[in-house]
Amino acid sequence: MALSFQIESHDGAARCGRLLTPHGEVLTPCFMPVGTRASVKGVTPEQLKAAGATILLANTYHLALRPGDEIIRDLGGLHQFMGWDGPILTDSGGFQVFSLADLRRITDEGVIFRSHIDGQLLELTPAKAVRIQENLGSDIAMCLDECPPADADTIKLRDAVRRTIVWASQCREAHRRADQALLAIVQGGLDLVLRQECAEQMIRMDFPGYALGGFSVGEKPEQMHAVLPQCAAFLPINKPRYLMGVGRPEDIIIAVMAGIDMFDCVLPTRNGRNASAFTRSGTLRLRNASHRRDPRPLEDDCPCYACRRFSRAYLHHLFQVDEMLGPTLLSIHNITYYLRLMAALRDAIQTQRLSSFRQDWFRDAVVSQDP
Amino acid sequence: MALSFQIESHDGAARCGRLLTPHGEVLTPCFMPVGTRASVKGVTPEQLKAAGATILLANTYHLALRPGDEIIRDLGGLHQFMGWDGPILTDSGGFQVFSLADLRRITDEGVIFRSHIDGQLLELTPAKAVRIQENLGSDIAMCLDECPPADADTIKLRDAVRRTIVWASQCREAHRRADQALLAIVQGGLDLVLRQECAEQMIRMDFPGYALGGFSVGEKPEQMHAVLPQCAAFLPINKPRYLMGVGRPEDIIIAVMAGIDMFDCVLPTRNGRNASAFTRSGTLRLRNASHRRDPRPLEDDCPCYACRRFSRAYLHHLFQVDEMLGPTLLSIHNITYYLRLMAALRDAIQTQRLSSFRQDWFRDAVVSQDP
Repeated sequence: MALSFQIESHDGAARCGRLLTPHGEVLTPCFMPVGTRASVKGVTPEQLKAAGATILLANTYHLALRPGDEIIRDLGGLHQFMGWDGPILTDSGGFQVFSLADLRRITDEGVIFRSHIDGQLLELTPAKAVRIQENLGSDIAMCLDECPPADADTIKLRDAVRRTIVWASQCREAHRRADQALLAIVQGGLDLVLRQECAEQMIRMDFPGYALGGFSVGEKPEQMHAVLPQCAAFLPINKPRYLMGVGRPEDIIIAVMAGIDMFDCVLPTRNGRNASAFTRSGTLRLRNASHRRDPRPLEDDCPCYACRRFSRAYLHHLFQVDEMLGPTLLSIHNITYYLRLMAALRDAIQTQRLSSFRQDWFRDAVVSQDP
Repeated sequence: MALSFQIESHDGAARCGRLLTPHGEVLTPCFMPVGTRASVKGVTPEQLKAAGATILLANTYHLALRPGDEIIRDLGGLHQFMGWDGPILTDSGGFQVFSLADLRRITDEGVIFRSHIDGQLLELTPAKAVRIQENLGSDIAMCLDECPPADADTIKLRDAVRRTIVWASQCREAHRRADQALLAIVQGGLDLVLRQECAEQMIRMDFPGYALGGFSVGEKPEQMHAVLPQCAAFLPINKPRYLMGVGRPEDIIIAVMAGIDMFDCVLPTRNGRNASAFTRSGTLRLRNASHRRDPRPLEDDCPCYACRRFSRAYLHHLFQVDEMLGPTLLSIHNITYYLRLMAALRDAIQTQRLSSFRQDWFRDAVVSQDP
């Protein structure tokens, strides 16, 4: 059994648990920093550990194109390759095929697309998505899914759900590695009937965990918030639930209250590179001249390396003169911010204070702007 | 006394010593990584410490333009600003005025130039160079000097020496901080008569240390190597000697044998950003496809973070996909390489094996190419 999950406490629908993987334990609800191309941009594995990261996400699509999954396999797998000895989750590549690549043809057998790197014509099938992830050797792999945009009509949405179920079955069939867990992805957009149908079909196949895909694809955050509690409730209570690619801190809080256990998002690193820092009192734009002489850290009580050692004035200077250290330090802070939020959420669940935590958070925070 | 220097062992003209500054001790011969704009590009102070750095260099010209030396003073000085609690040396700004800026007028009073950032007309005088460095609060400051290019004729060279002496006297006059040492710079190009004259005048003013400027300005390395032993011998034996802006590992070895104690150079970080790694068996170009599947570290016996954790294949991948971590990891390795070279040189001096160390080094090494 590559993945075990124990729930240790509840607060409403929210739960605190432990995810045990071949590369160690992860406390849930958890946040996975994104190492798209086998590197969390600008941050070393050592700095990630120090920031409190316990599990990372890497992208199958990007790694299959460069350097290639067989090279990573031959070099001892993704953990060895990227110097990260903790758990890793890989996505299936489906999301990137549908968002980055030049799509050519989708059938029940798979999808043919042109690489966004060199225009090469490539095919991704359920079996191939599994084989690539087995080559990468992640602890948690994902089934290939079809992820339609938020404005897809019901016919398109229904077709994507049907195909995602067919593909999940084929992925399950192809999956071999005993030291890797394969999770299913539930699609269906904002249509709760479709979400439920999809969830039921996936549950019938008995996966060790279930993800909600097809959010953060263009819908309004409030639309997602509205359907999350029911979408989560369609999933087994004793298995980990993963909300893919979400999101802003406020989205994560709402999703945790709906019963979600796992999250990933590029916001902490992307915003960090763009000189934007998350803080409990709102977003700080470090390029703003108001920081020019400010001796304060980004956040007084933040234990991260950037806050312990450097002033807002210094970070402002780094971005003014385009020093690489600016993006690195802000990424470290933002990842720390997300991981501290997760720890605070776990603490609130354990002490049955999640509802008041949420109230305090939304009262105090200048809710961060939509990226 | 802001700077004390004890020589602990000799081997020929080479010496091993201890430089004591207000921010700690430095073993010499030493190498100073360059933090031009108050950041060693892509490397945190924590990573610099781990790589073995004990003293850094920062550039007065760059910092006076952005963020401004008064801002740094008001924020508690350069150490506090850049999060480095060890010794810092600042140059005088002269070298950059003569190489980067649009020069307008040089007189014995100072130099008028246009900023390379925004075209603003600015003046740098000896007193102003000292005031800026006092605002920065470095442990070691440098006198303003005129640094002519290698192809300057004798008249130009003689004039630069005369003016550098006048300016040194004015700098000495202006200097106030008791917790900062002000070092003189000897000019004179490849003309040993001029070098000796300049050295004698500077020594008469009794500085706590002396630098050789005007090398690495376009002459052939062999021309510098030829005059270094005499140039060093013109300087007091009991004071630290600093060869500014030099250089490649082979230049440093030759200069240490000539009796030089201190070095700085941008090569480790600049080459690191350009995917070029120093190793004992020659330069590795990490973009080269030959590294694509190579599981070996850059150097088997290197204790740096890049070598302990990552393969050449991974570093190759990072540069192929333009991940920031590539420049960071290679800069860490290259700085470690330089600092290990300095430690090996100190050891060879202490054990009277410098001559054989040099022979082994030049026999084994594929001498690194001229940058």
